[in-house]
Amino acid sequence: MIVTVTLNLALDVTYEVGEVTWHAANRVSAVAHRAGGKGVNVARVLHAIGHDVLVTGLVGGSTGEAVRSDLAAAGLADALVPIAGETRRTLAVVDGAQGDATGFWEAGPTVTATEWARLLEAYRGLLDDADAVVLSGSLPPGAPADAYAVLCGLAAEAGVPAFLDADGEALRLGLAGRPALVKPNRDELARVTHHADPVEAAEALRAEGAEAVVVSLGAEGLLAVTAEGRWRAAPPSRVAGNPTGAGDAAVAALAAALVAGHGWPDRLEQAVALSAAAVGAPLAGSFDEPAYRRHLGAVRAEPVSGSPSPT
Amino acid sequence: MIVTVTLNLALDVTYEVGEVTWHAANRVSAVAHRAGGKGVNVARVLHAIGHDVLVTGLVGGSTGEAVRSDLAAAGLADALVPIAGETRRTLAVVDGAQGDATGFWEAGPTVTATEWARLLEAYRGLLDDADAVVLSGSLPPGAPADAYAVLCGLAAEAGVPAFLDADGEALRLGLAGRPALVKPNRDELARVTHHADPVEAAEALRAEGAEAVVVSLGAEGLLAVTAEGRWRAAPPSRVAGNPTGAGDAAVAALAAALVAGHGWPDRLEQAVALSAAAVGAPLAGSFDEPAYRRHLGAVRAEPVSGSPSPT
Repeated sequence: MIVTVTLNLALDVTYEVGEVTWHAANRVSAVAHRAGGKGVNVARVLHAIGHDVLVTGLVGGSTGEAVRSDLAAAGLADALVPIAGETRRTLAVVDGAQGDATGFWEAGPTVTATEWARLLEAYRGLLDDADAVVLSGSLPPGAPADAYAVLCGLAAEAGVPAFLDADGEALRLGLAGRPALVKPNRDELARVTHHADPVEAAEALRAEGAEAVVVSLGAEGLLAVTAEGRWRAAPPSRVAGNPTGAGDAAVAALAAALVAGHGWPDRLEQAVALSAAAVGAPLAGSFDEPAYRRHLGAVRAEPVSGSPSPT
Repeated sequence: MIVTVTLNLALDVTYEVGEVTWHAANRVSAVAHRAGGKGVNVARVLHAIGHDVLVTGLVGGSTGEAVRSDLAAAGLADALVPIAGETRRTLAVVDGAQGDATGFWEAGPTVTATEWARLLEAYRGLLDDADAVVLSGSLPPGAPADAYAVLCGLAAEAGVPAFLDADGEALRLGLAGRPALVKPNRDELARVTHHADPVEAAEALRAEGAEAVVVSLGAEGLLAVTAEGRWRAAPPSRVAGNPTGAGDAAVAALAAALVAGHGWPDRLEQAVALSAAAVGAPLAGSFDEPAYRRHLGAVRAEPVSGSPSPT
């Protein structure tokens, strides 16, 4: 079983508007609701490729109930921890005439010390049956700044590999928990390490505690920097579509490949194939299955030469 | 007791954003929720000026529960009828830098025939103890087009004066139920009657079934066209502020004055005073109490001369 942890879960809401008039009132022609947050996207992908998955995190209020119902409707088991605050919403207003979207992201409820302690207790219990844990996304207000260091550290002590997909301070402080893998994108990596070169920057994260680093390079694919070597793999062709959720699909593939016993660089090839197939699907957490199978046969990882700068 | 009926209730949500970047993701710095819909604003004002009030309408889902809790928190009793659909939200995104707002209005859930029948049954029961009913706002999808004719007709049969604040087809068809008063604004009135002159247009509505017509003229105040005569009253001075909810305050005052036994044109003066005091308050459903008392002593209705065109 793979456990996905999403501390700042959301209800993703989409408003379709024929043509948005800013600074005026607009009629919404269609409303869609979906459980969201990066860890939920990872769980959807893992479930779709046949893995047992369990969703945990913090939810509260009626919006939390809506998240829970949508997870159940998607066939995803949850071990969510209730909190007093109301789960946040992330709203995308899609402008039919412009063909683009404007997003409004609520910050999320403030987590109390007692609620955080309850999450830790529940998480420790889940580690007993976990083959891997995936920790994704931003921290809610009130959570400790080193939340991911604590969660990765507990996983390491239980012998469970932890995959961390966070950025900024949450990522930087999380490295102390010695995650099995971190997956920043190029910009996040540069911001956290102040190294422009992705290989140098990834080695800097390894020096601070990450066992392996996979960097998403957008259309150029993924770079893996590990104890066993360094590889880069790109999609077989340029994929048009929706890049939201491509990183979550990559993390899902990396965790699934480790649990299935695949080594490097196979894990990287699977991650590129699944990530490219996710770009071809309209919603984060979904992917184009025929494209995934085609990509799996076509993606080839190439070793990356050069030695890292000292960090 | 005054019963307010809001068929298309809403949860009014306000997102504060420092400076909105359209076509990009924005962090929401504060979120506020409030039970909304024109009839709820009327009920808040009636409650504040000391009237017994009961809120009815259709609510569903967790958003309906949020509406209900907020009504209770405001001290408003409700006799809301549950429906299977989820109550709509109306979102205002307030741009701190621009100092203005963009609205996104959900259409609301579709009401089934059975749910409509249940509303009618509950409403008929409420008429037994009602001194007046106020029917406000748009019709939800699925409600009959002549919903307000039916509701006004039932009130008339029970001897309860009905105040109708609607526009377009809902207003036009509602006249057949012989409401005691309708309150269009000047633009709504012109659209429904195709008369440019407000007195002519108001007489046209009276000819189709409205006992009295009060037209809101914005900063110029209110015009009353009744069987007892015609009057116009304006605020004592230009009031700066938020005009949202001023019409709802006017309807509240008109219903309250009738229940208290005041005649024309006193009712009109009270409506102008309360409406102007509502413009000075930040939220729809609230008003500036000292301003209300000052205006009450200062507003004077003037008879409007001239005979109506034949309709």
